[in-house]
Amino acid sequence: MANLSEFELIDQYFGGQIASYGVNLGIGDDCALLTVPQGRQLAVSIDTLIGGSHFPKNADPELIAERALRVSISDLAAMGADPMWMTLAITLPSAESQWLAGFSRGLFRSAEEFNISLVGGDTTRGPLAVTLQVHGSVEPEKAMLRSEARVGDIVFVTGTVGDGAAALAVIKKELEVGKSAFSYFMSRYYTPKIQIRPMRALADVSRCAIDISDGLLADLGHICNASGVGAVIEAERLPLSDPLRKLTDSETALNWALAGGDDYQVCFTVSPNKIARLEELQEQHQIECTAIGEIVRGKDCVCLSEGRVVVPERTGYKHF
Amino acid sequence: MANLSEFELIDQYFGGQIASYGVNLGIGDDCALLTVPQGRQLAVSIDTLIGGSHFPKNADPELIAERALRVSISDLAAMGADPMWMTLAITLPSAESQWLAGFSRGLFRSAEEFNISLVGGDTTRGPLAVTLQVHGSVEPEKAMLRSEARVGDIVFVTGTVGDGAAALAVIKKELEVGKSAFSYFMSRYYTPKIQIRPMRALADVSRCAIDISDGLLADLGHICNASGVGAVIEAERLPLSDPLRKLTDSETALNWALAGGDDYQVCFTVSPNKIARLEELQEQHQIECTAIGEIVRGKDCVCLSEGRVVVPERTGYKHF
Repeated sequence: MANLSEFELIDQYFGGQIASYGVNLGIGDDCALLTVPQGRQLAVSIDTLIGGSHFPKNADPELIAERALRVSISDLAAMGADPMWMTLAITLPSAESQWLAGFSRGLFRSAEEFNISLVGGDTTRGPLAVTLQVHGSVEPEKAMLRSEARVGDIVFVTGTVGDGAAALAVIKKELEVGKSAFSYFMSRYYTPKIQIRPMRALADVSRCAIDISDGLLADLGHICNASGVGAVIEAERLPLSDPLRKLTDSETALNWALAGGDDYQVCFTVSPNKIARLEELQEQHQIECTAIGEIVRGKDCVCLSEGRVVVPERTGYKHF
Repeated sequence: MANLSEFELIDQYFGGQIASYGVNLGIGDDCALLTVPQGRQLAVSIDTLIGGSHFPKNADPELIAERALRVSISDLAAMGADPMWMTLAITLPSAESQWLAGFSRGLFRSAEEFNISLVGGDTTRGPLAVTLQVHGSVEPEKAMLRSEARVGDIVFVTGTVGDGAAALAVIKKELEVGKSAFSYFMSRYYTPKIQIRPMRALADVSRCAIDISDGLLADLGHICNASGVGAVIEAERLPLSDPLRKLTDSETALNWALAGGDDYQVCFTVSPNKIARLEELQEQHQIECTAIGEIVRGKDCVCLSEGRVVVPERTGYKHF
């Protein structure tokens, strides 16, 4: 399929999608034309995944697409925004139809789950890379910002932490696991569960959130920096999954939970006077979240275990 | 500077920009938050330039940035949209401060010219590539679409064509040129002049436009496909620059003009009853454009020279 031109490629694998809300003009012109719902702000986030770095080059293209979209959608979730549209810039060493068919299948399956439509893109030849920009909308006063943590707020995290780093070790075959654990970690890595509706509900009680991509301590550190506060969390309160506890010793598990990254859970803060309302929302929307600490004066973001500061080995994934 | 983290890198080279119109939240959170002017549509376009393919890997980073932004802005111009915001996903083999300083200088210089602000991005380590998404706004009835050419419309092109391909030959040193010609073609390649205001004015008389990135015949062909029409243009009417005429024989020049690509001029169509108004606009806004042919029934897009069909050697740049 070396002669498949860019235009045929786009038509064949990425065209023909049903236009969704607010799409005045989709794929196939110089620009896509979009209408943001009246009175709402546009929320945008762009992310690149590099083959051989953010996923194995020989990974299943369906899973690459699912991971790429979920990693991006996670930023909308952490903002409390509704997904609307995406654009895709994909770079491929060659236009292999089987690879493309798998990729588009994975992309559109996830797109349907999150109710987001592909409105434009660019295909180029080169080393494997996937760049997605996601566009969402949010009510002006409902966006959850890194800068809105206040001293006294309780720090929460959704789901469990540490599974992203554990999954990477499993996928890289640094650890031996049974079939069911392998399948658990594969799905944590490639198809992390992004909770769009629960996060929108949380915007009623939280003004401050971030998604955990760099590692819990690093990402909570971004909140502290942006808000001019400090934070203290407790190792014993961190929600760890059973597969993680079974996979490794408690020290490694704690390290991954604090500094592993790639969890795509959300860390958020809630003022003490809104905890009762949060509990109502948790029940109403089946929100899984755990209180892990508190926002304090200062600028340090620390984790205590039995009163002593835990210093994880690796604080967040650094690209350079 | 191998230890420069992503966060320091973003702060140092891409932060600190003055927030411009409609930016509620810029760089530094999970998403940027933006307000599209009331009653206008959002126009978005994403483009990737690969090092070693779309520009030489050792090219001046200032020029890489200028070209990347202009190539993207060209899509907004062809739509008649006002530039507003951009996001940047940049992949680098290593974080070299000198390279980054040059790139950001070029990016912000062009950004100032087009009144567009950087609102978000992602930096990754890998083979050199630059992906830019530009966001503009346009009045709903003013966007110029590929699908709006009508039989009888006159076909126009802005500026001159063929310089993009000539410039590539010059840069690749396939042709020897003097100092002033070299400088002309370098600027045509790296800093093509994108005419935002003239194109917005043209939206008064044109409903159909496309930017010339793949080559005049290929891009006019996209118009024909999308509009369900054919087009006939005349070789003798194509606007060629003096440096191009001096650089090569007339056959090569014609070939580059028709099929060379990378011109970033705009091809647009105007109904005959609006030609008088177009001429007024041309004078008022100093719009350089040339009538080169006509939209006809059918679906073929051809160029005639003295009554015979010209078949260029290469019809548009194909990425795969």
